[in-house]
Amino acid sequence: MSDDATAERGDGERLSTRDSLLAAASALMRSRDTLGVSISDIAAEAGVNSALVKYYFGNKNGLMLALLERDLSLSITQLRDLVAMDMRPAAKMRYHLSGLIRIYFRFPYLQRLLISIMRDESEEVGRQIAETYLSPIAQAYETMIAEGVAAGEFRPTDSRFFYFTAIGACDQIFSARFVLKYVHGIDEIDDDLRRVYVEQTVGLIMDGLSVRR
Amino acid sequence: MSDDATAERGDGERLSTRDSLLAAASALMRSRDTLGVSISDIAAEAGVNSALVKYYFGNKNGLMLALLERDLSLSITQLRDLVAMDMRPAAKMRYHLSGLIRIYFRFPYLQRLLISIMRDESEEVGRQIAETYLSPIAQAYETMIAEGVAAGEFRPTDSRFFYFTAIGACDQIFSARFVLKYVHGIDEIDDDLRRVYVEQTVGLIMDGLSVRR
Repeated sequence: MSDDATAERGDGERLSTRDSLLAAASALMRSRDTLGVSISDIAAEAGVNSALVKYYFGNKNGLMLALLERDLSLSITQLRDLVAMDMRPAAKMRYHLSGLIRIYFRFPYLQRLLISIMRDESEEVGRQIAETYLSPIAQAYETMIAEGVAAGEFRPTDSRFFYFTAIGACDQIFSARFVLKYVHGIDEIDDDLRRVYVEQTVGLIMDGLSVRR
Repeated sequence: MSDDATAERGDGERLSTRDSLLAAASALMRSRDTLGVSISDIAAEAGVNSALVKYYFGNKNGLMLALLERDLSLSITQLRDLVAMDMRPAAKMRYHLSGLIRIYFRFPYLQRLLISIMRDESEEVGRQIAETYLSPIAQAYETMIAEGVAAGEFRPTDSRFFYFTAIGACDQIFSARFVLKYVHGIDEIDDDLRRVYVEQTVGLIMDGLSVRR
């Protein structure tokens, strides 16, 4: 199965060079807690020549766009499937929010990457990303909340604003991880911390969203 | 009252050159919705020679640090005063969260600026910022939540995590303002939108935090 576009990984798993470069960028951005990793560092981490970044992605922006697609596409599909499921609205939303924190736990740079790309790329790329990722998410929130309100489970809530509340509440601990380090002496968000964060934060959002009985 | 370090402003108000440069950086970062403004643009906006940025702040990082101090110091003092006030814990927290959204409304780049400085500056500057700004905020949250729990108004809540939930929920609409533009066709967060956002978001957080009766 070997060819020019494969690289051997430590765990024996084979990835195409393209996928290796994306995995390397992801791993470096995660471990260094910054979007500012150089092409040469990414290539070195992937164990390939840095010219291959240009070959596969054109430039660093192209690689970042491809990484956004790698990390987000599956989540958008899963969100669409979740919305279509026959489930109580509150259970659906709870499932979504817990999943959101799990995604940020895997890719702690994800929201920062999205924000940075939307700012720095052209209006055209911005519109394309909005159409591909942001609009489907906005529609999912609108549907989930409308269903919850109709079922008498959620209070009347503007889904456009709820989106920001939920994304911000779930993401901030990852975007501002240094606060954990500098203020609380916590160097890493591990599985235990993630579980406690999911429980408290998702619980708070769901209680805030739900009709009091 | 005029001297070398003053600049005339359009509204007739006199600011020192140093303050003019900070005001110019703030205005540009707000209107362009990015931290990426150049020294020459800032100087041009302030109507002064760009060499004065170097004179007053050393470099752009110095200017950004001074802007963080300008925008945050007063808020930290006010938060400390709020915590010391004789007020019901829920009213206190509600007041704080509404104020937080108002601060981000005035300085929509503020949380991004803090995150960017904490990442890019040295460990020493990071520790200093944490001590000056982040630790006092963390202590305020700890005290407010402990009081609320003791008064039977709040559920037992880990204040370290609640900080991220609250900051993220209040900030995200400003950090990801482009979502409003690209997905909902809303170009600007005006006073009306801010009011509706405050009502829904602060309401949700407070309901999530409060004991159900």
